[in-house]
Amino acid sequence: MGKFLTSRNEDYSQWYNELVTKAGLAEPSAVRGCMVIKPYGYAIWEKMQRALDQMFKDTGHVNAYFPLLIPKSFFSKEADHVEGFAKECAVVTHYRLKNAPDGGGVIVDPEAKLEEEYIIRPTSETIIWNTYKNWIQSYRDLPILCNQWANVMRWEMRTRMFLRTAEFLWQEGHTAHATREEALVEANKMVRVYSDFAEKWMAVPVIMGNKSESERFAGALETFTIEALMQDGKALQAGTSHFLGQNFAKAFDVMFTDQTGNRDYVWATSWGVSTRLMGALIMAHSDDNGLVLPPKLAPIQVVIVPIYRSAEGLQQITAKVEGIVEALKAKGISVKYDDRDTQKPGWKFADYELKGVPVRLAIGERDLQNDTVEVARRDTLTKETVAVAGIEEYVAQLLENIQQNIYKKALDFRNSKITKVDSYDEFKELLETKTGFFLCHWDGTSETEERIKAETKATIRCIPFDSPEEEGKCMVTGKPSHRRVLIAKAY
Amino acid sequence: MGKFLTSRNEDYSQWYNELVTKAGLAEPSAVRGCMVIKPYGYAIWEKMQRALDQMFKDTGHVNAYFPLLIPKSFFSKEADHVEGFAKECAVVTHYRLKNAPDGGGVIVDPEAKLEEEYIIRPTSETIIWNTYKNWIQSYRDLPILCNQWANVMRWEMRTRMFLRTAEFLWQEGHTAHATREEALVEANKMVRVYSDFAEKWMAVPVIMGNKSESERFAGALETFTIEALMQDGKALQAGTSHFLGQNFAKAFDVMFTDQTGNRDYVWATSWGVSTRLMGALIMAHSDDNGLVLPPKLAPIQVVIVPIYRSAEGLQQITAKVEGIVEALKAKGISVKYDDRDTQKPGWKFADYELKGVPVRLAIGERDLQNDTVEVARRDTLTKETVAVAGIEEYVAQLLENIQQNIYKKALDFRNSKITKVDSYDEFKELLETKTGFFLCHWDGTSETEERIKAETKATIRCIPFDSPEEEGKCMVTGKPSHRRVLIAKAY
Repeated sequence: MGKFLTSRNEDYSQWYNELVTKAGLAEPSAVRGCMVIKPYGYAIWEKMQRALDQMFKDTGHVNAYFPLLIPKSFFSKEADHVEGFAKECAVVTHYRLKNAPDGGGVIVDPEAKLEEEYIIRPTSETIIWNTYKNWIQSYRDLPILCNQWANVMRWEMRTRMFLRTAEFLWQEGHTAHATREEALVEANKMVRVYSDFAEKWMAVPVIMGNKSESERFAGALETFTIEALMQDGKALQAGTSHFLGQNFAKAFDVMFTDQTGNRDYVWATSWGVSTRLMGALIMAHSDDNGLVLPPKLAPIQVVIVPIYRSAEGLQQITAKVEGIVEALKAKGISVKYDDRDTQKPGWKFADYELKGVPVRLAIGERDLQNDTVEVARRDTLTKETVAVAGIEEYVAQLLENIQQNIYKKALDFRNSKITKVDSYDEFKELLETKTGFFLCHWDGTSETEERIKAETKATIRCIPFDSPEEEGKCMVTGKPSHRRVLIAKAY
Repeated sequence: MGKFLTSRNEDYSQWYNELVTKAGLAEPSAVRGCMVIKPYGYAIWEKMQRALDQMFKDTGHVNAYFPLLIPKSFFSKEADHVEGFAKECAVVTHYRLKNAPDGGGVIVDPEAKLEEEYIIRPTSETIIWNTYKNWIQSYRDLPILCNQWANVMRWEMRTRMFLRTAEFLWQEGHTAHATREEALVEANKMVRVYSDFAEKWMAVPVIMGNKSESERFAGALETFTIEALMQDGKALQAGTSHFLGQNFAKAFDVMFTDQTGNRDYVWATSWGVSTRLMGALIMAHSDDNGLVLPPKLAPIQVVIVPIYRSAEGLQQITAKVEGIVEALKAKGISVKYDDRDTQKPGWKFADYELKGVPVRLAIGERDLQNDTVEVARRDTLTKETVAVAGIEEYVAQLLENIQQNIYKKALDFRNSKITKVDSYDEFKELLETKTGFFLCHWDGTSETEERIKAETKATIRCIPFDSPEEEGKCMVTGKPSHRRVLIAKAY
């Protein structure tokens, strides 16, 4: 079954690809740049979806669904948006196939050419704002707080499973507001929802901040981001929330009448996270034995493996396990009893380690006599023997501890990888030996940003919300700067 | 706000379209044949999804996700499938847009033409069986019990919201088995899951049966269906489950080694229901005042409307309502308190009737004195005054009664619309004056089936599972027949 992975030290990228396929998360498909999300991977994504969806609903949002296809002309309506998105897109030009005259399969029917081509949505601002036009007349129709769970497509040249695929699954929130302030509050609120989700569910610490102008979403006046650090010291943008100003309202002519009878354009936000989060989850915690999943997102939280010498022994163990399973389920813990006789315990242990099941219980015939069970933690790979009585309390507490420990480990790692640098020469030197986040002064210009990127391949990830005011000089140009920005090589 | 609908008697089709848009369920979009599913409509669909998803999981299925696009050549691999599906499809031929040289928007980059075109999935058997090939080596890898929630696209010429749209949302189960028997059991199990869902959640009675050969899914050896009757007396196919034999395994060369070392092709099923169920739900129960929703699928089960003369009155009512809301929520009932001062109670009453909220509570200042509340049922449009004490028990029971009553009403209607007919002349005559299901003898040939369809526009909906053996003569040809089949005009 190929339990053994290339180690992270040996080849981080290879380790990631092997882990994704061998743990049953995803695999490449017959379609260029598109993956198949396999059942175990999808089960984790479903858990993410449920949690996020509840957070969106708790903050007043509702779900809706808009068309997959967007008329080509819609992309030309918002000037910045067209630059950012009307490029590498899947284009639908025909609507019919027919049998090949030579009998060799099917061909595209040249007579079924569309008058106007459709684009498979790379993001839905255009089609949604074209729809909102009909929904909004007065301030009474505002705010609109819609979210959509959907597939989108961007014809990426270099793809990696979960991190960058031509088709991916995501949610995109699209809200409409009567005032600039309200829209800004909304965009800000949603990046904080993402931060909460990343930290509390995924156990991935993130740094929130503003994107620089050149890194903003195409059509946004402000983009807020959460930036996470992977174990190889590279940053990963895990979610973004955009304040779109009145750009899309102007492009699609969406106006409203306010309380005083004035007409004005509507203010907008959009925000999204995608299956890319799966990549962040995998890369933040996993080790050379396989996945390490935070209990809150683990499809199976506890696996129980019987260790027996005879059919009778198995029977006795199974009788004991039934009570344990029931007690765990009663506490809302998802548990699997793996009594397959086609695989040996050692194989099962390795397999569940590969799959990142947080807690493994093993029961042997001697445990029966002692009324004990062996408890193994995936995060620390430690084991101990515990009494069966009260095991459900023990495991429930253990799952909480694991959730916290995984987060703390990632946080300690991340914090150990933040370096303040004040000289550009030192920065360039450090990049040769060190990875992680760098906090530097920057003069705020696109020229300097571009130069850093071109010369070092590191990019300004964000201007952190919590970056304190501090007078300094741009490490590149020496011009004045009032706070440090976060720089890193990134996925 | 246009509370008033065209009546069903006046124009059933117009009534349906108005209801779908005015109740906020869906609306046409800028994309040909595609709809926007609005928040209220999507909330109902989400409830359907949750319930179905749980039923799939309870029967051992897991979710996964396969690519949106399918290489064109895949469609030629299964001979029947290509006839059925490789026709009206959205075809992706290019992967890039560029700025028009004249500055007038964007154009398709002719240099970004794909070598092989992709089709937006109309259904996923081909791409999934191409994937299963890599997942299956031996009997140990079987069964595979996967389901996918996804959007699909069929370039329909005549579209109607929910009932037939170019893009629609659905789930498609795709299972792989070691034996013919096991696959047949699976296909059978799933049509029964659909029947349970339709009857217990949607309160829509259905007739299960086999499709005739010519009505089978393209590539299936057997198609099971559930057929519902709408209020206009037309049938609606609400879900299908297919026994695919080894057709797709042969087309994609998917073989397995059994316990004895023999190699054989894998057996398959597929099964699906779609947003078409929304159309069935709407058309089965609703009336001239608007939607009638079964409580189990209603996004809002109870709405509370205050009726007040003064701000002080509203304050007192609100204080009382808070306790009621809490008590209802504690019983798991979804409740909305609508204290907006921008609309009058009468407007709200009509609006919630239009939206099909099952129970409406109204509290006036006199109710406060009497410690009572007015309870109105959407299904019967009746009202009564009830004591506030114990209101949560009363409402919980009422919701169950409504669920049952809606089902019973639909069942009585459906049963009153089943007519046995033995002569083709009588059948043709009856079709002029009567709608609904007809139970007739049929000789089992495609020729006769085709003739009935051509001459009457009625179609054989299914050979019902519970149709008793009964010797008879085909109403058209007089040839022997052993059981009656279900015939109707259909959507």
